[in-house]
Amino acid sequence: MSGNTLGKIFTVSNFGESHGPAIGCVIDGCPAGMELSAEDIQLELDRRRPGTSRHVTQRQEPDQVEILSGVYEGKTTGTPIGLLIRNQDQRSKDYSAISDTFRPGHADVTYWKKYGIRDPRGGGRSSARLTAPTVAAGAVAKKWLKKEFGTIIRGYMSQLGPIEIPFISWDHVTSNPFFAANQSLVSELESYMDELRRDGDSIGARIEVVAQNLPAGWGEPIYDRLDADIAHAMMGLNAVKGVSIGAGFESVVQRGSEHGDELTPDGYLSNHAGGILGGISTGQDITVSLAIKPTSSIRIERKSLNKAGEPVMVQTLGRHDPCVGIRATPIAEALLALVLIDHALRQRAYRC
Amino acid sequence: MSGNTLGKIFTVSNFGESHGPAIGCVIDGCPAGMELSAEDIQLELDRRRPGTSRHVTQRQEPDQVEILSGVYEGKTTGTPIGLLIRNQDQRSKDYSAISDTFRPGHADVTYWKKYGIRDPRGGGRSSARLTAPTVAAGAVAKKWLKKEFGTIIRGYMSQLGPIEIPFISWDHVTSNPFFAANQSLVSELESYMDELRRDGDSIGARIEVVAQNLPAGWGEPIYDRLDADIAHAMMGLNAVKGVSIGAGFESVVQRGSEHGDELTPDGYLSNHAGGILGGISTGQDITVSLAIKPTSSIRIERKSLNKAGEPVMVQTLGRHDPCVGIRATPIAEALLALVLIDHALRQRAYRC
Amino acid sequence: MSGNTLGKIFTVSNFGESHGPAIGCVIDGCPAGMELSAEDIQLELDRRRPGTSRHVTQRQEPDQVEILSGVYEGKTTGTPIGLLIRNQDQRSKDYSAISDTFRPGHADVTYWKKYGIRDPRGGGRSSARLTAPTVAAGAVAKKWLKKEFGTIIRGYMSQLGPIEIPFISWDHVTSNPFFAANQSLVSELESYMDELRRDGDSIGARIEVVAQNLPAGWGEPIYDRLDADIAHAMMGLNAVKGVSIGAGFESVVQRGSEHGDELTPDGYLSNHAGGILGGISTGQDITVSLAIKPTSSIRIERKSLNKAGEPVMVQTLGRHDPCVGIRATPIAEALLALVLIDHALRQRAYRC
Amino acid sequence: MSGNTLGKIFTVSNFGESHGPAIGCVIDGCPAGMELSAEDIQLELDRRRPGTSRHVTQRQEPDQVEILSGVYEGKTTGTPIGLLIRNQDQRSKDYSAISDTFRPGHADVTYWKKYGIRDPRGGGRSSARLTAPTVAAGAVAKKWLKKEFGTIIRGYMSQLGPIEIPFISWDHVTSNPFFAANQSLVSELESYMDELRRDGDSIGARIEVVAQNLPAGWGEPIYDRLDADIAHAMMGLNAVKGVSIGAGFESVVQRGSEHGDELTPDGYLSNHAGGILGGISTGQDITVSLAIKPTSSIRIERKSLNKAGEPVMVQTLGRHDPCVGIRATPIAEALLALVLIDHALRQRAYRC
Repeated sequence: MSGNTLGKIFTVSNFGESHGPAIGCVIDGCPAGMELSAEDIQLELDRRRPGTSRHVTQRQEPDQVEILSGVYEGKTTGTPIGLLIRNQDQRSKDYSAISDTFRPGHADVTYWKKYGIRDPRGGGRSSARLTAPTVAAGAVAKKWLKKEFGTIIRGYMSQLGPIEIPFISWDHVTSNPFFAANQSLVSELESYMDELRRDGDSIGARIEVVAQNLPAGWGEPIYDRLDADIAHAMMGLNAVKGVSIGAGFESVVQRGSEHGDELTPDGYLSNHAGGILGGISTGQDITVSLAIKPTSSIRIERKSLNKAGEPVMVQTLGRHDPCVGIRATPIAEALLALVLIDHALRQRAYRC
Repeated sequence: MSGNTLGKIFTVSNFGESHGPAIGCVIDGCPAGMELSAEDIQLELDRRRPGTSRHVTQRQEPDQVEILSGVYEGKTTGTPIGLLIRNQDQRSKDYSAISDTFRPGHADVTYWKKYGIRDPRGGGRSSARLTAPTVAAGAVAKKWLKKEFGTIIRGYMSQLGPIEIPFISWDHVTSNPFFAANQSLVSELESYMDELRRDGDSIGARIEVVAQNLPAGWGEPIYDRLDADIAHAMMGLNAVKGVSIGAGFESVVQRGSEHGDELTPDGYLSNHAGGILGGISTGQDITVSLAIKPTSSIRIERKSLNKAGEPVMVQTLGRHDPCVGIRATPIAEALLALVLIDHALRQRAYRC
Repeated sequence: MSGNTLGKIFTVSNFGESHGPAIGCVIDGCPAGMELSAEDIQLELDRRRPGTSRHVTQRQEPDQVEILSGVYEGKTTGTPIGLLIRNQDQRSKDYSAISDTFRPGHADVTYWKKYGIRDPRGGGRSSARLTAPTVAAGAVAKKWLKKEFGTIIRGYMSQLGPIEIPFISWDHVTSNPFFAANQSLVSELESYMDELRRDGDSIGARIEVVAQNLPAGWGEPIYDRLDADIAHAMMGLNAVKGVSIGAGFESVVQRGSEHGDELTPDGYLSNHAGGILGGISTGQDITVSLAIKPTSSIRIERKSLNKAGEPVMVQTLGRHDPCVGIRATPIAEALLALVLIDHALRQRAYRC
Repeated sequence: MSGNTLGKIFTVSNFGESHGPAIGCVIDGCPAGMELSAEDIQLELDRRRPGTSRHVTQRQEPDQVEILSGVYEGKTTGTPIGLLIRNQDQRSKDYSAISDTFRPGHADVTYWKKYGIRDPRGGGRSSARLTAPTVAAGAVAKKWLKKEFGTIIRGYMSQLGPIEIPFISWDHVTSNPFFAANQSLVSELESYMDELRRDGDSIGARIEVVAQNLPAGWGEPIYDRLDADIAHAMMGLNAVKGVSIGAGFESVVQRGSEHGDELTPDGYLSNHAGGILGGISTGQDITVSLAIKPTSSIRIERKSLNKAGEPVMVQTLGRHDPCVGIRATPIAEALLALVLIDHALRQRAYRC
């Protein structure tokens, strides 16, 4: 029941700290016989990697993954897949000042209260750096889902602070550092971010993730519903404060005559359900939306406490993403893939 | 890993169908030595019970709970607590017409695709009736949390369709059938519901749940965060399409200088975090918000399919809640209690 | 992770005490579409039922099972199967004297130390009566395994105290109360038991369980091996002190040239492995052996302590099995079936 | 529910293959604040390490462990502890001939049937080499148990093939390569092993493991009994074919008047229970016995099949332990430690 493991049949056990020797994970339950190389995983890691534009942290990490086990002659063997990523650019000196201070909005204080000990270097385990193993595992899940069902999992940023970013085309997503599906807004986003960095402040964002081409029938009736497990995975991602499926919070003002998706021989007439009814996939697109809070590390000075409980003023220098939402898209995709493969395998077990 | 079990240390295994002989659950992991009676549980069940106002389903179910095990001479023994609720008011004839038809917005079609067999009586296992065992288990969790930590878990409806219901006082919640914390709006809510019933339609709602008086330190770093497990529990509740914590989707437009809750020797200056940082409780109130979709059972005729894939028109008669959100408050409280007791016990295991 | 649940995909959550209102279980993960009736389960319960010969406890329990959920129109629906058995013959007065005393060999003292509270009526939860829900769940597992793979799971008593009972024929097992596969020894066994009862003493036994007709490939490489899970299930049965597979403890004196089962196009030349290599089934018969300790409830007076830690003499009157091994055969079969169905479903999930 | 994870609160997720780049594990749930260094772990790894006497495999592996996470400034932080051991002495050429052939007694055939793909190098994942991460994790568990409760976990070989090795003193165990608690028999054991190697054959062994100084109250009532979890862990160890607790298979011939351990104010008068009653620890020594089969890799030629199902003769050359039991003692100790820490933490969670 370890809290650092995701999934029940296809499981990912995550380890590591931001400035420790390495981060990584153990994937258990991956079906045997699938072609898998480090390159397959590296492609996804590179999408999440820091230092790739001026709008994200300048920490330089190649995030080079090594497959330690579970693959033989280029194919998965069905045994656990160990993945290792060495940390390279640990500037621990940047963080030495904060080891006795709790940064507002950060997990410093809660880790201290929980464990009575805290690795302060780069946020230790609470760093967003620990999403890299999730992305690596998600790459394996994505590959299997695509191979078995043709499932495609993609995401994009739909809002950056006050700027809404209407979806135009998936093609746009790869050509800008924001994962915006709308190239015409990119220069506005860049200006906004440049100004934000000058202010030393940060901003929230909204991310959409979509899974297409999956069969009906994945999910469980009560508690471990497919939407419940998606919510668990997404809310477990750093900085996420809200998760919705389909019509989401719009459902509050909808009438049943509007919300309920009508069925016809040609398919559903709408998708307010977001592809899930009664916790089980309908076969329509699964649509998930995430609210991501602004980065807690900002240069603006704020009130806080130190370990002794004394008031201090805190200013967070160093290298930080001014909007953690910018790099969240590939992570959210990975999480959706991990939930889906887990339920795909569960359904194989239980099928009649 | 059964999908019908909630929790890892304090677990609830739920069974039953809407019109089968009985519903219930097995609670495992309840600490020994706590006073517990059927009355303790009945109090919470009665808050969720159908038929108590004209705004909810008129199904008559006493929802009388029997404790089958785990209690000796009025105290928990530490062994599993079996809870049984006999179904009484099964009018299976009401549902006979729909056994071959998929009702829009309902899980009929997904259960059919998943299992290849479906209990159509009252929605079978996908009925909201199956939240009764959750509420029963939640009563046990609430009692223990209050006894050990003084924790209070309460909820209220903050929006009914278009009508926002600003919080005035917890005292108001018990004096109206909507769980509204604002007595002055009750007649408006009643009029709205009366009109809705005349239209044969249904409506969504928004529910807030709050936990007060709990220590810092509950939760796990990655994946099984406290907020992740809350999201899992809440999104697993029938009709929920969105879950948020603290500032929730408002975080998207917030700057870090606004969102990050400052700490002072007198406490936090705000609670945008909703009581959770880095997946671990801060000791502040935990605040959760739920978006609940409109009931899928409406009298208005809609397009759908039958099992043969042929187009049919569907109209759902019978006894239904025109707003499932109305009875959702005690269920959401129960779910929050179940997540919190589970993490409270996990923290006892792991504490240094 | 509840300790009262067996299995990971096909799970059984057991509840109840010997003299509480009822015992039972929730089965989760049973594939949909299998014909299942209370009679299917009752047949196995009747094999385990007390009071059927003079050599077992005279407690009169019909052990009538009620299916509460998960079955619709005679078929499993894939949702949890709730099973209920009401306790009928609770003579709590028989046990009143022992509530402050720890009976040697019994779990009285350990439950007291663990929970600080103890249901003393008939041993409470530590009673062998709690194997009835296991047998009920095992009946479901047996039926599915037979239907899907033709798997047959059978057991017999191979030794009663000093009397070894060589296997002659499965046909003999049903015609005597000892589950002896050797009718010629039955009168000797009866005489032995009659003498034992006169002495007020009890005796150990050895049970063999065999599963036939199952495919190769069930099990997991490390930790959750098929043999490991069998050992877990069997050692979890009341009074079991030893479990072995295949050659078992005979392996200690075997050379590799003798132990290793040679393969030929016509099959294996021996089965020292007991049907399992590297934790995975070979397709040969799975052979398991259990050592069962003598009943701890005997009329002979022994030294013990009371709750106050004072020395007392204890004599256990009332109705008891003088050899718990006699009724253990159907329970061991059920446990083997439960482990096998769990791994059969796991293999369906993971298959390449 | 991954099959390669041991434990529920203190979990060990094992990965790796005999001749892959590395083996290791992720430990989750280790309490924070315990001093831990690589040396603590190395001490136990060195006891299991190959190549330390002429009686075990001559493979040269330093088994140098690296702590990748979960330790900060020499103390555990409560977050997952990643452990890595690089494989050094992979002579894959030794194994090339066997990739199409199933060695009798080995898991070659079952891995092939299960996964449809097999890493033949050194037995891949079925190699006893994968017990190294178990030993490493066990070192952490041992240290914590000793610190918290003074618990000591030790083992010894009690039989090597036909040679019984009566216990004389724990002091003898460290001074011979057999883990024999009886120095006077060591030369006989050495002669026996030398002869065995000349024959190209292998032999079974029996191992005893004992835990001393632990409190009463660890374990769960039904299914996850302490003895059940011990049996699971031990039977999951390569080559184990039998597990017993306390009197074990001797219980079969014991009367209740002999077996039941009497209690006095000065303690128990015997320990036939092996320290466990009703699945819960009594506070007495926990005594476990393992039957280990002879190594399957022998030079003697035997009948087998190749992947095409054709008959072949198989002779296993290369570097092998002629008695896998010789190096099993530290592994069995580690497994007992892992089960005990898991139940110690569970008891902390559930305590009244």
